Amino acid sequence: MPPVPITRLTIAYDGAPFVGWAKQPGQRTVQDELERALATVLRREEVALTVAGRTDRGVHAWGQVASYQGDPPERLAGVNALLAPEIAVLAADPAPPGFDARRQARSRTYCYRVLARRVRDPFERGRALHWPYAVDTDALDGCARALHGEHDFTAFTPTDTYHVRFRRIVSAAQWRRDGDLLCFWITADAFLRQMIRALVGTMLEVAGGRRTVEDFAALLEGGHRRDGGQTAPPHGLYLAGVSYDDN
Amino acid sequence: MPPVPITRLTIAYDGAPFVGWAKQPGQRTVQDELERALATVLRREEVALTVAGRTDRGVHAWGQVASYQGDPPERLAGVNALLAPEIAVLAADPAPPGFDARRQARSRTYCYRVLARRVRDPFERGRALHWPYAVDTDALDGCARALHGEHDFTAFTPTDTYHVRFRRIVSAAQWRRDGDLLCFWITADAFLRQMIRALVGTMLEVAGGRRTVEDFAALLEGGHRRDGGQTAPPHGLYLAGVSYDDN
Repeated sequence: MPPVPITRLTIAYDGAPFVGWAKQPGQRTVQDELERALATVLRREEVALTVAGRTDRGVHAWGQVASYQGDPPERLAGVNALLAPEIAVLAADPAPPGFDARRQARSRTYCYRVLARRVRDPFERGRALHWPYAVDTDALDGCARALHGEHDFTAFTPTDTYHVRFRRIVSAAQWRRDGDLLCFWITADAFLRQMIRALVGTMLEVAGGRRTVEDFAALLEGGHRRDGGQTAPPHGLYLAGVSYDDN
Repeated sequence: MPPVPITRLTIAYDGAPFVGWAKQPGQRTVQDELERALATVLRREEVALTVAGRTDRGVHAWGQVASYQGDPPERLAGVNALLAPEIAVLAADPAPPGFDARRQARSRTYCYRVLARRVRDPFERGRALHWPYAVDTDALDGCARALHGEHDFTAFTPTDTYHVRFRRIVSAAQWRRDGDLLCFWITADAFLRQMIRALVGTMLEVAGGRRTVEDFAALLEGGHRRDGGQTAPPHGLYLAGVSYDDN
């Protein structure tokens, strides 16, 4: 018997109108809209997507990856025509036998965008956190360096979380500047719920002088959520991409 | 008697929710919202703004300039707090005596953004024209070169227009590429109504092989509006900046 064909999708979406990726009855989700569009173009009863990063309410994606059992749609434009303009399927390719977008993901890369200037920018509304406060960029760099390697992120995820393991391996973490825009890039094997937003919120407290880099670094070895800083809002966060062994 | 103080404003706005810059009874305009916010913070009956570029419905601005008689507001944040998030006053500075944002503008620079790729980008929705067709960038460059200097733009503005002179002097015109994004930058002493959008629409016809660069160049010496190409939609157009003798 030939192996079941698997399709790998690369997807971008503006998270603003969605309660998140994952299907929830009666709520608008990316998964739901995408599964329905795919079922229509593939003329199937249903299509079940497996996703690399279950993004929360309001979180964006530049390069989300999902997979399903079946062939790619004949025309990408056909799927996109059925989707709201906030979602775009960028690619739909045949994947190796047994491919699973979630289980086989080697790492996820996210970017959190902060507009660090006094006056807001109408074109960054809903796209970056507006942060009209003083920012010590050396302190941000110090925090990013402290993040490298394996840490216990218990202080950076809600205590009512469903995780059983709180250690994650960060392979890259860096603040990059582009004019007034500060972008925090982070790559890890996996992330806890709201982890990046809690890290960014805490780092901005360090950047404002309310905590030290050493305090931040100590929190990476474990602690209570109440020891960490504010959770930054979702509209600055983007799932930038997912790595697999074949790319 | 001391000269009347004049204030110069630099303003950014997302044009989507507005019928344009200029006040129109019963319609949402940038001028109206800004004049009302300024009157409130300056505690005046009314504030009358003079503007460098009267942008049309849906056209954006990164660096619009306007002026009014009176002192700058004490705090920029006070004005911005009264404005919709689609508008931001970036700067409010005392101007030289007799300054007038419209009459003294030496040139205006606009940018038209085109996303030239097959699949749309959710983050460029309302920010760039999605153009999923073939584009000959050499032809676009040829058109931009033909634009330099003084021309008759009668073929690039509606025939029911209020202009009496149709000649304008283009001091810079260039298509710049940034990945899939093609940006048309143009600087001129002044522009006719819908002129840049008609130029872009016509150049995209050249880029698709439906017209030649020579045909486009010939239209710059005069012609009827029906000889020119389509008018590109407003959501790709940005007033990027205005030049004065003092900057």
